[in-house]
Amino acid sequence: MKRLYFGLLLLLLTICQTSLAQNPQIKRVNPTNWWVGMKNPNLQLLVYGPNAGTLAYSISYPGVKLVKAHTVENPNYAFLDLTIAPATKPGTLQIVGKKGAQTLRQSFELRARDKTPKGQGVTAADFIYLAMPDRFANGDPSNDKFADMADPNADRSNPFYRHGGDLVGAGQHLDYLKDMGLTAVWFTPVLENDQPLTNEGGVMRSAYHGYGFTDHYVIDRRVGGNEAYREFVRKAHAAGMKVVQDAVYNHVGINHWFVKDLPMKSWLHQWPTYTNTSYKYQPVTDPHGAESDRRVTLDGWFVPHLPDLNQNNPYLANFLIQHAIWSVENFGVDAWRVDTYMYNDQPFMNRCNQALLDEYPKIHIFGESWVNNVVDQSYYTRNNINFPFKSNQPGGLDFVLYSSMLDALKQKFSWDDGVNRFYQALAQDAVYVDPNKLVTFLDNHDTDRFLSVIGEDIDKYKIGLTWLLTTRGIPSMYYGTEILMKNFKDPSDAEVRKDFPGGFPGDKENKFEAAGRTDRENNAFQFVRKLATYRRDNPVMHTGKLMQYLPQEGTYVYFRYDGNKTVMIATNTNEKEISLDTARFIERMKGFTSARNVLTDETLTDLKLVKLPAKTALVLELGK
Amino acid sequence: MKRLYFGLLLLLLTICQTSLAQNPQIKRVNPTNWWVGMKNPNLQLLVYGPNAGTLAYSISYPGVKLVKAHTVENPNYAFLDLTIAPATKPGTLQIVGKKGAQTLRQSFELRARDKTPKGQGVTAADFIYLAMPDRFANGDPSNDKFADMADPNADRSNPFYRHGGDLVGAGQHLDYLKDMGLTAVWFTPVLENDQPLTNEGGVMRSAYHGYGFTDHYVIDRRVGGNEAYREFVRKAHAAGMKVVQDAVYNHVGINHWFVKDLPMKSWLHQWPTYTNTSYKYQPVTDPHGAESDRRVTLDGWFVPHLPDLNQNNPYLANFLIQHAIWSVENFGVDAWRVDTYMYNDQPFMNRCNQALLDEYPKIHIFGESWVNNVVDQSYYTRNNINFPFKSNQPGGLDFVLYSSMLDALKQKFSWDDGVNRFYQALAQDAVYVDPNKLVTFLDNHDTDRFLSVIGEDIDKYKIGLTWLLTTRGIPSMYYGTEILMKNFKDPSDAEVRKDFPGGFPGDKENKFEAAGRTDRENNAFQFVRKLATYRRDNPVMHTGKLMQYLPQEGTYVYFRYDGNKTVMIATNTNEKEISLDTARFIERMKGFTSARNVLTDETLTDLKLVKLPAKTALVLELGK
Repeated sequence: MKRLYFGLLLLLLTICQTSLAQNPQIKRVNPTNWWVGMKNPNLQLLVYGPNAGTLAYSISYPGVKLVKAHTVENPNYAFLDLTIAPATKPGTLQIVGKKGAQTLRQSFELRARDKTPKGQGVTAADFIYLAMPDRFANGDPSNDKFADMADPNADRSNPFYRHGGDLVGAGQHLDYLKDMGLTAVWFTPVLENDQPLTNEGGVMRSAYHGYGFTDHYVIDRRVGGNEAYREFVRKAHAAGMKVVQDAVYNHVGINHWFVKDLPMKSWLHQWPTYTNTSYKYQPVTDPHGAESDRRVTLDGWFVPHLPDLNQNNPYLANFLIQHAIWSVENFGVDAWRVDTYMYNDQPFMNRCNQALLDEYPKIHIFGESWVNNVVDQSYYTRNNINFPFKSNQPGGLDFVLYSSMLDALKQKFSWDDGVNRFYQALAQDAVYVDPNKLVTFLDNHDTDRFLSVIGEDIDKYKIGLTWLLTTRGIPSMYYGTEILMKNFKDPSDAEVRKDFPGGFPGDKENKFEAAGRTDRENNAFQFVRKLATYRRDNPVMHTGKLMQYLPQEGTYVYFRYDGNKTVMIATNTNEKEISLDTARFIERMKGFTSARNVLTDETLTDLKLVKLPAKTALVLELGK
Repeated sequence: MKRLYFGLLLLLLTICQTSLAQNPQIKRVNPTNWWVGMKNPNLQLLVYGPNAGTLAYSISYPGVKLVKAHTVENPNYAFLDLTIAPATKPGTLQIVGKKGAQTLRQSFELRARDKTPKGQGVTAADFIYLAMPDRFANGDPSNDKFADMADPNADRSNPFYRHGGDLVGAGQHLDYLKDMGLTAVWFTPVLENDQPLTNEGGVMRSAYHGYGFTDHYVIDRRVGGNEAYREFVRKAHAAGMKVVQDAVYNHVGINHWFVKDLPMKSWLHQWPTYTNTSYKYQPVTDPHGAESDRRVTLDGWFVPHLPDLNQNNPYLANFLIQHAIWSVENFGVDAWRVDTYMYNDQPFMNRCNQALLDEYPKIHIFGESWVNNVVDQSYYTRNNINFPFKSNQPGGLDFVLYSSMLDALKQKFSWDDGVNRFYQALAQDAVYVDPNKLVTFLDNHDTDRFLSVIGEDIDKYKIGLTWLLTTRGIPSMYYGTEILMKNFKDPSDAEVRKDFPGGFPGDKENKFEAAGRTDRENNAFQFVRKLATYRRDNPVMHTGKLMQYLPQEGTYVYFRYDGNKTVMIATNTNEKEISLDTARFIERMKGFTSARNVLTDETLTDLKLVKLPAKTALVLELGK
């Protein structure tokens, strides 16, 4: 690994020395286009090509001003600061570069902004489906692999190789998701990952997960490319669904084009010898923490094949922020999930979030910060703690609630354990400005699958999904949960990233359809569908207040309520039926005399004592 | 229990009806005296006696004004609002009460404030010894029991009865404590507990613990009475030591004189049927919590024989606040430990704290709020969280750090466990305005004894005490820890409240002296003494900053440092010796070339690799 790392530096030096001899060329401009009428009139173009940094640049286009052209350590780069006046007309401008007698011209398109929905955000009215495009559905077997890519393989028999799933395939199942009550889709990243196979612990692995970008402005051909992504979003929007993009700012793939010819040394976090992040979040928030521990956490590399970006570099920061804006504007995505959020430079993240929010006030941003306590979790979202640094992130993935729900289902009830864990996690919500903006989940592509964690117990499965779909927050579900996909991460995370049966040509089973599912699977699917559609159709489940009561004897009761409706969620985690005396819930139940069991449509006419079957969570809409 | 509770109400009604017939009398005035020259000019006297509330009151004393006389539900009470002008001279005023032809006069002394130290506070420069007066040393066997008290017993053979320890006895061992490096003494409450034996789970128990006050203005005769307490404080101050008083606002003993004849119904938290607190703190801070759960937590009774005071009653609030001021002024105590802090009305606690701080700006106040997370813990002290209610308490007992230190010693090292627990607890200190004001501990009178928790392992014992005495905060130690007293609370807390051997007449062993201790006990004692005196003599251990590093492979390193000194505390929790590479600590070790082992006085001349013996915490004062 060290060799690879130093190789990069050597490559940079070599290019710097040799390129001076070449005639200048312009091979890339990033962003690849822009729009007129953006709120922020500033744009910084990265211009790349042999000796592109040695050209004298000019731009002549009404409303567009070239404010400054920057040269950097590597002569193959120029960074051009432009301003675009509000009244500028759409069209194609020419970037003109001169050196001596040589004049280069590079077209750059300024488009009109279209009126299609974009940056709509996700809220607690949504229910997000998380899928890995490579593992969900293969709609176009012609794009499974390309001989000219660094990893030319596709092989469904190898759990670590690409399997061929794509955006066309996912688009074919939007009806399935919509019918189930899902309202948004979050894919693991779709950007180009032209990464080689990497040797991880003796296993050769592909970058099918998508977290190693090699070109920010290209959607990976193997999931369908830029147009397929735009088309998927269009189709989702037409179905009334939203799309969440999975963004990565912390690192890129080792094969990223700019890593092979770094603009400057400080583009990446460079260390005297290869340094991995400690994966420890405490040094960031610890008032007693050591700067050296903080540096390792933040600037250490996530893994050797994912070079760590230095967001303190102003050119890189602009590059990343503009790419975020470009992605929303170009593809029309609605929300922004940020990978490895806590490893990023936090002041940079605030600038990036703000830039997105300035252009798309309704967009939702929720980062991944895998922590074990609410203090650290709150640090990465809008919070009520006077930390020296204040995050402006609107949301965040709720890892604390995730662990607490699993503990609640795994543990026996006691003073602090069992369902108390779930209750106690929510009871600390005072640290957040708005806990209803956190994205909740029972598992994801990096964890054991929910069903396995709870011992494949269908009762616990239903309780967990009931909590997920009725407590505060924006629920998300990992693909296949609805058809009882299971497995532990051990021996590898490939175990929890299996293909969705029916999504691939030649699949013997098709679990997208009732006929292809077992009774048990249909039972699970219908359960999710019933609850998800109830949630979707009832605003009280989105914006209603939450009131929770102290768990007692293995039961846990909470309410969602607003001016129109009151819904009681009563969980019995015991192995035996309980007759629940509701007298202590008078604050919320006063005036109600009956209830409808949302899951069974049965009516309860006596609310004084409510029978809670063993290991069940009832969802009762109260009536008068 | 319900019978007892309703009995109280009945008693109140009975007295109200019958007392109207009696001639008025004044039997009590509380406070029993006051002072001129207090910052707060207001004083509310509680005047009690048959029909004392039916008198017309007047006071004629230069500078003193009777602003208002209040009558309440029970005619046996009057509450007199006085103002005392700044220039008022000390002396004895007469409270004059008239009814028809009858005139009553009651003397009330306004003393000059003496110049003796009081309210000096405790800081991180201190080391507090927590003792139960009844179980520490019996200096006056003549006051062990009194036939005219509700519990006339004293019997050392019964773990649940009083054993006869007293303040005179404690005073005889101040030299022992001072020599060990202790700088402050905290006794469990010394106020009168004229409580009957109570049946708790079939066992008859005395109130030797002191938490059931029966008269706020009387120190229990069995620990020596008011004068003995004053004398103890005088003696402690003469030895350069401080005294912490253990205050209880939440409840009083069932035998408290005012409980037998309540001024008004709202003096106590009254419930339709007996209601115990849930002992659950979550409803207080939970933004989703139910008001009914909050009421049970706060207003439910701690146990049936400790009636719960209603601090929303303004007369009671004044009574409690004035008693606090009176205690400091009268006895000269330095700091204020508050029992069951989280069960009190928090706005009341703020008023009470502020009143103490107004009169004694240096006093320290640290309450007991037994919680399991820093969010809830911070709620009860000055914190950095924008809770709807903001506590002004300067300190607090650090239950989170307590559990974390025990976990750190009990658990095997892993990603989040073992010594990571201790590290992670401190890493969340951002929630506190000043974590160095929290009082730290390894055990107390309500917990298993430290030595037993850690499997009687002397190595772990030394590590725990090293952490306690070198990390941030104000350390406290439970009596007997230094001589290896042990035990679990099971079957009862009497197991962890045994008599200090040598403190009682006839004791065969005297562990106050080296000769009476075993080698192992002397080893422990000398260890505590060595570290405590080092801490006492080195300001870097009081006010020096703390910097901690990520634990690695079972080691945990932190530093205390200021402009003058740097002390490195390096813990190895492994079963084998480790050679610690110190390169990663450069931020703190730069420029230092040698170190003195504070515990052994050995000198280390090479700091690059530091040998850490198995299960050891080294304390190294760095040198150049």
